[in-house]
Amino acid sequence: MAESWSFLDTSEPDFRPLVVIELAKGTKKETVEWFTKRIVDKKANGGAQLLVKPLATENGDETIYLVGASHLRLLLGAETVGLVKECNDNSMRTFTYSSRKTFKDFADDNHNFLTMAECQYIIKHELENLRAKDEKMIPGYPQAKLYPGKSIVRRLLTSGILVQIFPLHDREELKKLRYTWYGRVKVGYQPLDEIRCYFGETIALYFGFLEYFTFALIPMAIIGIPYYVFAWEDYDKYVMFATFNLLWSTAILEVWKRICAIMTYHWGTLLMKRQFEEPRPGFHGVLGINPVTGREEPVYSSIKRQLRIYLVSLPFVCLCLYFSLYVMMIYFDLEQWALDYHEENGSNFSSLMLFVPSIIYAVVIEIMNRIYRYAAEFLTSWENHRLESSYQNHLILKVLVFNFLNCFASLFYIAFVLFDMKLLRQSLATLLITSQILNQFAESLLPYWLQKRHKKRMKKHTCSLKTDTDLSLVEQVNLEKEMGTYLGTFDDYLELFLQFGYVSLFSCVYPLAAVFAVLNNITEIYSDALKMCRVYKRPFAEPTANIGVWQLAFETMSVISVVTNCILIGMSPQVNALFPDSKMDLVLTVALVEHLLLAIKFIMAFVIPDKPRDIQMKLAKLEFESLEALKQQ
Amino acid sequence: MAESWSFLDTSEPDFRPLVVIELAKGTKKETVEWFTKRIVDKKANGGAQLLVKPLATENGDETIYLVGASHLRLLLGAETVGLVKECNDNSMRTFTYSSRKTFKDFADDNHNFLTMAECQYIIKHELENLRAKDEKMIPGYPQAKLYPGKSIVRRLLTSGILVQIFPLHDREELKKLRYTWYGRVKVGYQPLDEIRCYFGETIALYFGFLEYFTFALIPMAIIGIPYYVFAWEDYDKYVMFATFNLLWSTAILEVWKRICAIMTYHWGTLLMKRQFEEPRPGFHGVLGINPVTGREEPVYSSIKRQLRIYLVSLPFVCLCLYFSLYVMMIYFDLEQWALDYHEENGSNFSSLMLFVPSIIYAVVIEIMNRIYRYAAEFLTSWENHRLESSYQNHLILKVLVFNFLNCFASLFYIAFVLFDMKLLRQSLATLLITSQILNQFAESLLPYWLQKRHKKRMKKHTCSLKTDTDLSLVEQVNLEKEMGTYLGTFDDYLELFLQFGYVSLFSCVYPLAAVFAVLNNITEIYSDALKMCRVYKRPFAEPTANIGVWQLAFETMSVISVVTNCILIGMSPQVNALFPDSKMDLVLTVALVEHLLLAIKFIMAFVIPDKPRDIQMKLAKLEFESLEALKQQ
Repeated sequence: MAESWSFLDTSEPDFRPLVVIELAKGTKKETVEWFTKRIVDKKANGGAQLLVKPLATENGDETIYLVGASHLRLLLGAETVGLVKECNDNSMRTFTYSSRKTFKDFADDNHNFLTMAECQYIIKHELENLRAKDEKMIPGYPQAKLYPGKSIVRRLLTSGILVQIFPLHDREELKKLRYTWYGRVKVGYQPLDEIRCYFGETIALYFGFLEYFTFALIPMAIIGIPYYVFAWEDYDKYVMFATFNLLWSTAILEVWKRICAIMTYHWGTLLMKRQFEEPRPGFHGVLGINPVTGREEPVYSSIKRQLRIYLVSLPFVCLCLYFSLYVMMIYFDLEQWALDYHEENGSNFSSLMLFVPSIIYAVVIEIMNRIYRYAAEFLTSWENHRLESSYQNHLILKVLVFNFLNCFASLFYIAFVLFDMKLLRQSLATLLITSQILNQFAESLLPYWLQKRHKKRMKKHTCSLKTDTDLSLVEQVNLEKEMGTYLGTFDDYLELFLQFGYVSLFSCVYPLAAVFAVLNNITEIYSDALKMCRVYKRPFAEPTANIGVWQLAFETMSVISVVTNCILIGMSPQVNALFPDSKMDLVLTVALVEHLLLAIKFIMAFVIPDKPRDIQMKLAKLEFESLEALKQQ
Repeated sequence: MAESWSFLDTSEPDFRPLVVIELAKGTKKETVEWFTKRIVDKKANGGAQLLVKPLATENGDETIYLVGASHLRLLLGAETVGLVKECNDNSMRTFTYSSRKTFKDFADDNHNFLTMAECQYIIKHELENLRAKDEKMIPGYPQAKLYPGKSIVRRLLTSGILVQIFPLHDREELKKLRYTWYGRVKVGYQPLDEIRCYFGETIALYFGFLEYFTFALIPMAIIGIPYYVFAWEDYDKYVMFATFNLLWSTAILEVWKRICAIMTYHWGTLLMKRQFEEPRPGFHGVLGINPVTGREEPVYSSIKRQLRIYLVSLPFVCLCLYFSLYVMMIYFDLEQWALDYHEENGSNFSSLMLFVPSIIYAVVIEIMNRIYRYAAEFLTSWENHRLESSYQNHLILKVLVFNFLNCFASLFYIAFVLFDMKLLRQSLATLLITSQILNQFAESLLPYWLQKRHKKRMKKHTCSLKTDTDLSLVEQVNLEKEMGTYLGTFDDYLELFLQFGYVSLFSCVYPLAAVFAVLNNITEIYSDALKMCRVYKRPFAEPTANIGVWQLAFETMSVISVVTNCILIGMSPQVNALFPDSKMDLVLTVALVEHLLLAIKFIMAFVIPDKPRDIQMKLAKLEFESLEALKQQ
């Protein structure tokens, strides 16, 4: 390995732009020169050994740079980031340059061995690992301090000299992907492998989960339809539906783990070693020594962080929860007012008015969720977490707790305090449908429309009427750099999580919820696909092996829904009629059934293996081989 | 590494016997010669490169061989098994021969660098990994087939040529250990590090857990005493006790994980890489190719095994459970009979008779547990599991389910069907105390007495009246080879598990249970120590990083006890008096409290990190270093 870096010339005549770097307007010349020199410098001199070309624009200021790399450089980079690729014998192995010949489809002149998303990921990794040597500051900006080992790109970003780094779209590929994904009317699966090649594993896994979840909801929806059509109200049918629902939701979550393992095994991310996690960009502190790495880096006392979490964030979250409950009570006042109005007037208009409070409340909930989201992000970033993963966990926890209460508190109140099943059904339907419509609008259509308007303006501005594919590189970059940035799959998963709540928490009262969820998810796939391909900048690929904390969140929701459904069934008049003499027996029976269902859930989760047998065998084989290799050493 | 094996002479003049091999009487000469040759042969020739010496006995037949190894050979073996030792900079690292100088207390002439238990573990590992080359059978025994790669020792054991392999006691060390462990009257901790050096990690961890668990029970016991002394019957005090008990039991199980991590980190087993698991000795099947290793080995179809499990084992276990319930019903008949007798006669004798059914039942339970244990072992071994771990898991599951039902079914019946709290308290006390007395007797005192008698006979036989330490090697080996074999920590953990059940399941009815448990455990430590040092052969050390499946078993028990305690409190007349109007409210309140307690338990388990911060840091540091090392490669 060491030799390859030095004796192989990693520059190349045909430059293919992969990543765009946009510097702030008026960045000092010396800074630009220093930065580009570091990017192209040899590894031995502490450079990244990549290729850089300034993008000439009409007004002559060079703020945009295109970064590429030679084929060889990318292969060496693939080894550095630990990519896992398929071998000639169909097994998955960590790619190394020296064993490159054993990999499937590898040829010295096959530049498609690495997907474009992988190449861009490699370049991003190399840029982020460009570290200060003995520089004390960024040349030209004495206030932007550096210390040995500090990532240069992160400092440039935090000091505002670097506006953004983003990967370029591949117009040809994107067109093909759009066509197979949502461009034609078809019934079938999404092209997940193509999505993965273009957008990376995290996004492909989200779409895979969305698709799987939609398919998994179809049985529930089908079983739910007759309840609506025939207006079934028999308790035994409801009990059957709820029981099926609960076991089904456990089964689908367990099976998802297996499907996820199969997918990520074939994508190579299941085997990919976790990279050592660097401090997140926003992390600040006094310069000290990291006890783990022994490197110089900012250090921030854990006690201070705990104080911020428990003395500021926690009370704030509680306050928000209280506020959300307060808003809920206002909603109930409104509801009462609408009911009174309807009773007084009794017109068609007044019966329509009955739905207004729920709709208003649904809109308010969405607005509160979004505002809270910003507050939670601000607070979590103020808590100053060292690692991105810990930041994400704290953010997700904050957002989940609030959104759960905000969305479902009114339903819990209606169900378990007011005992009003009719109102519960009506509220559930209104909340679910309104939030779905709002989400679809706010997430995709609005940005799409904004972006389209912007594009038209841009085209008018440059006085060109070319079609998309004919755009010159300059035009493409100028268009893309103005596009919105995709902030990750968080909001998309959150939406699914809340939907899962609507479907499962009160499933025995409103079996039709699954139908709406299925319908929504089908359009969601299309609108999310549109969003990814048309609205946002291309995101960097992120290797991932599973959906992480969301698996836990969905499982927790399915445990809670066992409890709520058992109580709902226990409260139904039909079940009550079965125990005319003793309410006691009723409650004890319900509690027993609930505990049994919970026990079955846990046993199912325990018994169903997380990985299918053949994946287990393949993993065991790899482990065995690495142990054997160690012995040989 | 490769050179060290060939050019270093690993034989040594001063032979220290570590492991004893006992062959069957009348083993053919050619077999013995072949076997000993393979043991001493060079690694390059497929040998184990150990030292062997026959033990001359008075009657002249050479069936016992002593195995040892040179210091250098042991160091090389330590690298092979992946021992983790402390370095000069106090960090724990995997031992390699080439980096030996960086380890604490290493010196070329320090033969105590490896503990005797470690040396014996290494020799056991090397013997078990002595594999057939091109032999088709064991010389002299054509029916004992071999195939390339088959472990010779395992075949010798299964074909009865090899009677046993066991490590020798170190009389001096044992005497010292006995003294510090239980030889003097003292208040304090057990010498866990010394125990670990002498008996290995698995046994030391058991004693560590026993000690920890006893200390953890003390607060419960202290709080429980006044309930007995002042005959407190107020519901609020019981609620307090139960709540404390539930949260406490969660806390102690979580804290144990941390303590366990600290201990095993310092013992090096937390970092030790898992070895690739070989098929267990009893596993049989048609010779085929293992898909994971590509090696020839017996293959047994997974479907056949599943059929055996579900069509034979499962029905058998259900039958046993039914039988156990049947015996329970007989016990209740007896109980009723005793009660009638007492009412008729009303004498002192008849009031004593009230306890007799419980005592008989406790004895019967113990006997059934022991018989079932053998049946479960037979069945599980008949299921023909490939791996020892999978065998153990199936065995533990079978035994746990039966023992749980067998021990606690009558208590559940009394509590939740008969609603007789007085009888519950009495049964609980009788069962707990009787089973503790029986266990202590059957486990240690009986074998100790048998062994002592045997020793006396032996001594008479050899006509010597020497004290223990003066025994010659021949006498020592002859004594030890007749001692019982310690079958692992399974029964000891099971006993603690059932005790934990007695203490926590009905804690709010009988707070005194914790007191008895503490008293029992203090004597248990002594009797188990006695058992290990005096009754049984020395066992081979087994490196382990945690108590494995028992952690899960204890956690499950603590979840079940939340449910039982909540119901018991809900049923108490004092709590019932609080809700005079509505039983409904009572049951709902109890259910709410139960769910809250369960939620708190899960949140506590989630929030308390499994490893203390400094251990986490040390592990992170090691991971970082290995990643850096990979980069350098």
